[in-house]
Amino acid sequence: MTATLFTGIAELVTNDPEANDAGATDPGADDLLGAIEHAALVVEGGKVAWVGPARDAPAADASYDVAGRAVLPGFVDSHSHLVFAGDRSREFAARMAGESYAAGGIRTTVAATRAATDEQLTAHVARLVREMQRQGTTTVEIKSGYGLTVRDEARSLAVARQFTDETTFLGAHVVPDGDPGEYVDLVTGPMLEAARPYARWIDVFCEEGAFDEDQARTVLAAGAAAGLRGRLHANQLGPGPGVRLAAELGLVAVDHCTYLADADVDALRDSGTVATLLPGVEFSTRQPYPDARRLLDAGVRVALASDCNPGSSYTSSVPFCIALAVREMGMTPAEAVHAATYGGAAALDRDDVGRLTVGSRADFFAIDAPSHVHLAYRPGVPLVAGTWVGGRPI
Amino acid sequence: MTATLFTGIAELVTNDPEANDAGATDPGADDLLGAIEHAALVVEGGKVAWVGPARDAPAADASYDVAGRAVLPGFVDSHSHLVFAGDRSREFAARMAGESYAAGGIRTTVAATRAATDEQLTAHVARLVREMQRQGTTTVEIKSGYGLTVRDEARSLAVARQFTDETTFLGAHVVPDGDPGEYVDLVTGPMLEAARPYARWIDVFCEEGAFDEDQARTVLAAGAAAGLRGRLHANQLGPGPGVRLAAELGLVAVDHCTYLADADVDALRDSGTVATLLPGVEFSTRQPYPDARRLLDAGVRVALASDCNPGSSYTSSVPFCIALAVREMGMTPAEAVHAATYGGAAALDRDDVGRLTVGSRADFFAIDAPSHVHLAYRPGVPLVAGTWVGGRPI
Ligand SMILES: [Zn+2]
Ligand SMILES: [Zn+2]
Repeated sequence: MTATLFTGIAELVTNDPEANDAGATDPGADDLLGAIEHAALVVEGGKVAWVGPARDAPAADASYDVAGRAVLPGFVDSHSHLVFAGDRSREFAARMAGESYAAGGIRTTVAATRAATDEQLTAHVARLVREMQRQGTTTVEIKSGYGLTVRDEARSLAVARQFTDETTFLGAHVVPDGDPGEYVDLVTGPMLEAARPYARWIDVFCEEGAFDEDQARTVLAAGAAAGLRGRLHANQLGPGPGVRLAAELGLVAVDHCTYLADADVDALRDSGTVATLLPGVEFSTRQPYPDARRLLDAGVRVALASDCNPGSSYTSSVPFCIALAVREMGMTPAEAVHAATYGGAAALDRDDVGRLTVGSRADFFAIDAPSHVHLAYRPGVPLVAGTWVGGRPI
Repeated sequence: MTATLFTGIAELVTNDPEANDAGATDPGADDLLGAIEHAALVVEGGKVAWVGPARDAPAADASYDVAGRAVLPGFVDSHSHLVFAGDRSREFAARMAGESYAAGGIRTTVAATRAATDEQLTAHVARLVREMQRQGTTTVEIKSGYGLTVRDEARSLAVARQFTDETTFLGAHVVPDGDPGEYVDLVTGPMLEAARPYARWIDVFCEEGAFDEDQARTVLAAGAAAGLRGRLHANQLGPGPGVRLAAELGLVAVDHCTYLADADVDALRDSGTVATLLPGVEFSTRQPYPDARRLLDAGVRVALASDCNPGSSYTSSVPFCIALAVREMGMTPAEAVHAATYGGAAALDRDDVGRLTVGSRADFFAIDAPSHVHLAYRPGVPLVAGTWVGGRPI
């Protein structure tokens, strides 16, 4: 195996507090991010073989100079809906002109997705995944949920599986039509059976107007029986039982968490369930943002993700979500970067990504800036200069 | 001269209402943007020679297929402070952690700018201008204002002049030290004399704690006598006399306009002075946004610009400003795009840029999307696939 030494790293974010260096840029960042200034990184066999100060770097077979840039672990975007067809820019423009967010818009996407060929869906996902990689994302979770038939959910997941192991069956996204009880039977019966070969996770949109607590329990239990681990969309549009259900069931993550009672926060802290915040949604639906500060201060684990989807958050940009988290949700730049890397990995129960320590996957990116702070300090600017997946440039 | 035909344009924004097409994407967009669907564009000698529906396109010597993308006039970013050295990311992180915005932070940049060589300043501006071009900006105004000595203001403008004709002398950015009256004498005397060969415009930061109305009048009058046209920073941090002064003097533009009385709005409407809004500042200082809706509804001309600077808005991204204007300021996507193109040109009193009509400069960009709406619909995503300046790809 060839060992490659990456040099010229102005700041290396390891997410390993032991890797601390006195001179980190952001007050408090060194504790959380394990940031090393003037660092080096050795990659071998697609994994991190060594990290540390440049002055201590070992010899290697090859070297690559990142020329004074900061290097961060690739973003782990733990929540996206990339398998879809069609465009809802008109709906977006109308909403921005004052019309309220209509969940029924999902049906537009469902119709277009059903009408699309596998090849069209695959090409579209490929384009979005590539777009994400160019913005620093190296691990992405992809959900189904715009098929809502046995055939269309299964093929959505088969498409997603070509791009990631982190696939999630979200047949319980919305009731497409007819009786909700009958639809839950379909989801937990033949649809689950067809989806299972392609999915690692099962998810339910537990919200007023979508699926209630009992239905969510039913779907998650069926999924568990089929070997799929649970996650939830909950407390996005108003208070509800979803977050407490996630904590009670010991799920790895519950996503949105915009409307939380104190008991919800306590439950998340006690269960260790990751609260995944998706500020792109609040930006694009003009809703109030979740209170990340409250969660962090309570000791809840927090992740940031894009929720990339054509209805409520058509951003693929984790840097944009970081900038929003800092502006709107009370996170420091270090907390936001940590939540989008280490936090995303925790939300997928992964310890091989989201950090740059010996043995982890060599998934990382370099930015045209000397520190991670610039991801928030320079909002909207495409700072990512290069992304490496398994040690290879994309 | 070679005529090049650009084909495959899903939507062409011309900013010429006469170019209207029935099928524009955004409700109301066709009136404002003169959007043509399935369009073509002919460039000859660096200028637009023809625009219209693809089916009517004339023959040309060469052709270029933009492959189903939307094409827009290059952004005219009428307000930036690109000539500086140093980094204020620590100050940014501290502010986001709760410290209030301190205008005194400017002094950090002034010290670093004075210490930098001309070569260092030039390389930094080149990098930022390139970064802007990659995001669709083809005309940029650049101010001095981090030198604040005769020598450093003059060389700042000499550096800026290498990149744009739209250079602005902003010696009256802040009083560096000593007596404000004496500093105004310096600005209107030897500093103006040294700056004049390199500047088209003169600008004053007219705000409590910076320069008052009388001082602003004095500076603008001296500039006018020296052949420089006036513009103002005003009403950013609170109500003040700047906006009314700009209207009274018939200035082309007044920038920020965050705190406006009804009389200010009336004055802007009556004078035709362009109100340039800079939402990157409010984003990065966590201040309330200017009310673009109120201005548009009153009939005021509005521009959007980045205010790219290291203290209060280190974004170079006009697409990001458009997304903010839609989310936070009540603009439609079409209004925001118009303000960032045609509006920016109006704020610089230019009619050769900011539109794509016969005879205008062939400055434009293509986005990885079928319509201009996506600039707001897909916030943070680097959608710009290519930028052309004078008909040449950058
Ligand atoms: Zn979602
Ligand atoms: Zn400014």
